[in-house]
Amino acid sequence: MFSLPITLTHARDRPYKQQIARQIETLICSGRLQDGNRLPSITRLASLLQVSKNTVLGAYELLIDSNLIHSEPSRGYFVTPRHGRNGKRAIPDFVLDAPAGFSTRSVNRARASGVHVPPPSLPVRFDFKVGRPSVHAFPLRAFIHLSNQLLRHAGAAMADYTPPEGLWGLRLQIADYLSGSKGIKADPEHIIITAGTQEALSLIASHFLDRHAGAVHESPGYTGFYRLLDRHQAQAYPVPVDEHGLRTDLLPEHPVQLAFVTPSHQYPLGHTMSTARRQELLEWASRKGALIIEDDYDGDFCYGPALPAPLAAMSPRQVIYLGSFSKTLGPGLRLGYMVCPPALTPGLIARKALLNNGSPWLTQAVLARYFDEYDYTRHLQTVRRRYLEQRNTLIQGLKQIWPGSQSISGENAGMHLALRLPGHGPDAAAVANAALRRGIRLYPLDQAASAEIEPSVSRHLLFGYARLDSADIRQALRLLSLTLSRLY
Amino acid sequence: MFSLPITLTHARDRPYKQQIARQIETLICSGRLQDGNRLPSITRLASLLQVSKNTVLGAYELLIDSNLIHSEPSRGYFVTPRHGRNGKRAIPDFVLDAPAGFSTRSVNRARASGVHVPPPSLPVRFDFKVGRPSVHAFPLRAFIHLSNQLLRHAGAAMADYTPPEGLWGLRLQIADYLSGSKGIKADPEHIIITAGTQEALSLIASHFLDRHAGAVHESPGYTGFYRLLDRHQAQAYPVPVDEHGLRTDLLPEHPVQLAFVTPSHQYPLGHTMSTARRQELLEWASRKGALIIEDDYDGDFCYGPALPAPLAAMSPRQVIYLGSFSKTLGPGLRLGYMVCPPALTPGLIARKALLNNGSPWLTQAVLARYFDEYDYTRHLQTVRRRYLEQRNTLIQGLKQIWPGSQSISGENAGMHLALRLPGHGPDAAAVANAALRRGIRLYPLDQAASAEIEPSVSRHLLFGYARLDSADIRQALRLLSLTLSRLY
Repeated sequence: MFSLPITLTHARDRPYKQQIARQIETLICSGRLQDGNRLPSITRLASLLQVSKNTVLGAYELLIDSNLIHSEPSRGYFVTPRHGRNGKRAIPDFVLDAPAGFSTRSVNRARASGVHVPPPSLPVRFDFKVGRPSVHAFPLRAFIHLSNQLLRHAGAAMADYTPPEGLWGLRLQIADYLSGSKGIKADPEHIIITAGTQEALSLIASHFLDRHAGAVHESPGYTGFYRLLDRHQAQAYPVPVDEHGLRTDLLPEHPVQLAFVTPSHQYPLGHTMSTARRQELLEWASRKGALIIEDDYDGDFCYGPALPAPLAAMSPRQVIYLGSFSKTLGPGLRLGYMVCPPALTPGLIARKALLNNGSPWLTQAVLARYFDEYDYTRHLQTVRRRYLEQRNTLIQGLKQIWPGSQSISGENAGMHLALRLPGHGPDAAAVANAALRRGIRLYPLDQAASAEIEPSVSRHLLFGYARLDSADIRQALRLLSLTLSRLY
Repeated sequence: MFSLPITLTHARDRPYKQQIARQIETLICSGRLQDGNRLPSITRLASLLQVSKNTVLGAYELLIDSNLIHSEPSRGYFVTPRHGRNGKRAIPDFVLDAPAGFSTRSVNRARASGVHVPPPSLPVRFDFKVGRPSVHAFPLRAFIHLSNQLLRHAGAAMADYTPPEGLWGLRLQIADYLSGSKGIKADPEHIIITAGTQEALSLIASHFLDRHAGAVHESPGYTGFYRLLDRHQAQAYPVPVDEHGLRTDLLPEHPVQLAFVTPSHQYPLGHTMSTARRQELLEWASRKGALIIEDDYDGDFCYGPALPAPLAAMSPRQVIYLGSFSKTLGPGLRLGYMVCPPALTPGLIARKALLNNGSPWLTQAVLARYFDEYDYTRHLQTVRRRYLEQRNTLIQGLKQIWPGSQSISGENAGMHLALRLPGHGPDAAAVANAALRRGIRLYPLDQAASAEIEPSVSRHLLFGYARLDSADIRQALRLLSLTLSRLY
């Protein structure tokens, strides 16, 4: 059944194919046509609109050129999922002029924080993208219920600026959560709500870094921090990691302002930093007067023995602790938080005010009330059970493909693991390319992280296992196994 | 009727007064107790909870100390409105340590973008704050309807990062609006969604400014831009304004990267820049190779003759145009946009990605659909009629208080006007102080704007008239008139 509201009008300067394309574009962009929806066949739409098949074909071709729809052989035309689109406008009816640097755009974007990966060159059926939660992780019904409750009386809240540091109620709930789950005794006063971890890093970078500053980061490590160092022209000191986390014996003796670490689940290799290393890091930072950034991006999920105490619990005055709801609820929310050493809080709140005057009211208010009326910890447990099962399926499959000779790291926490390929045979890029031809997207480490001084980098693949369910993971690995049997 | 769920438990280290205070705090912070709600009397709560009156009094005192509630003589205890709170935690049961610089906090915050004003020292009944829309301006019912529609299928959207440049559907709608209402022919491709104008300015500043850069800004002018220059250690060139807008004859001959202007309704004096001045500014910028930032923060409301064509319509390659939904819908949304010259778009999108990976999905999706299913232009007209009436009431009242000898500027557009006090008599600060003692908050220009080189600055008062309805404005001005009769 096709009942899309498309109206054609006679106009000399507006060919039918453009009118059709423009209206379908609006239907897609406004959400009436959803990702993966099938469009009517050319014959059917031509007959409905009483135009020639060539006109409809022309319209569909405009939309295909814009990556808004795609055709699947012998199945028909489908709306392309949002993340597969490159955003190019369908009908350039009022383009000012073609931007000179247009072709550099996806490069530019991928060079930013690293979370927006360039669209794949081939259609993807199974995507092992790192850092995406399951679509079932978001508590939709609770959020609908609470949004309704809150919006009814939102006139006054919408008519004013939110406090730059975030809503008090949400900060209070986060303090309670951190105290109960992580042993971090933070006063809500020193918690600042941000639009996710990346915004927290931007605030910290603009507050502490200039061209004379130095900062330690893990290598391989999170691109979003490394790029900020680059932008601020700060001196970057990459420090390698091993299975106990950051190699504290290789910390620099130069003056350094910041040290960025991911102790719960090192990004990207997934090691958990040992308590001994944590102590050594704190001692080093204390000698240097350096501030530690503890990015606990996905440490809310743990499958093995309990994680050691966070650095922020061991020495709150030395550490800015970063938490995020992107992994536990969803990155579409754009909410995270930073727990600041008390003396640094006022300055960082002023930074946040100068940056964007605070985060949106509604999502903060809904989330605060969600904490109050629902059980966030139980939500995490439910999601954790799901991820545990998916992780086990993945590990089992990987061990069948590479029996004995691979090595897996990072499987005890978070939402992804790293696979080190055997020393012989194709490298990570070759495996990923072969997989992509079968519709499986894999992520070689050097595409998903900054990696300056890691020699074995070309042999690591990252597998995010949160978004695909166990059946998908099994199917993807079966396909992958078939594909690889030809490579080895 | 008092039916708040407060439960007391015996615990040696948790006195009842702390338990009561903590639970009332949670009720306030989670929104169950709303701004202005009356709390039960001490006698009543003591009898309900079966504790002594001293215990309840102790709890209330803790909450008063935290600015969460306040007492009104012979009326009782009330929840303090959010913006009156300083955010100090009620019960410091796990405070780490007292931050040394705590007292500098409100100063720091006010020193940021200027939109968060320090709380008043006395209770305020009529607040003429600039830049706050009416609480009736936000289309609540439409947003509730659309949020419900969209959240039902939001699992996938919440589970992924939004595009850093914003949702395509929203950018398309903004392009259509700008084309129809402002004559700006922008391709959606070159529109970037931001968390309001301040975020756009932050992005621009971090993209173009360093310690060797120079930037022109209006004086008096918008604090949020001036502070960014300061943070980036860029050279600021303040240029005066008159009734035709920026004094283009006084533009500097030094090398300059950016020029920030508010041509529709100069902030804070409210003049509209003449077409001749616009041309002169564009010619100057062209000679200098400078980029113009056109901040159209409240130009969607116009009460006199139509505004001249925006600079971005006259010369799109030279201008970044900034628009905001903070004034037309509400600042609680945290949504605005920038229209970029095509060649600069990719770089600025990468900046936005590095800053915070994009704006939240839901508010963008709701707004895109709001444009699609409702009539934004008609919404603006409805709000405009309301503001016109309030503006007329305000002007009439001001002319009665200062017949003949005052001068009013900025009344032809926007949501505030500026009053220049007569040359004799008390200055703006004295009038504002006298008014505050009667519960009327007025804003001397030098508290609400950066003003380096304006000699008459101490005689200007700003009046935001969007938030108070006509009856309130009339009553406030009657009170003000009585108060001032003693000053003159």
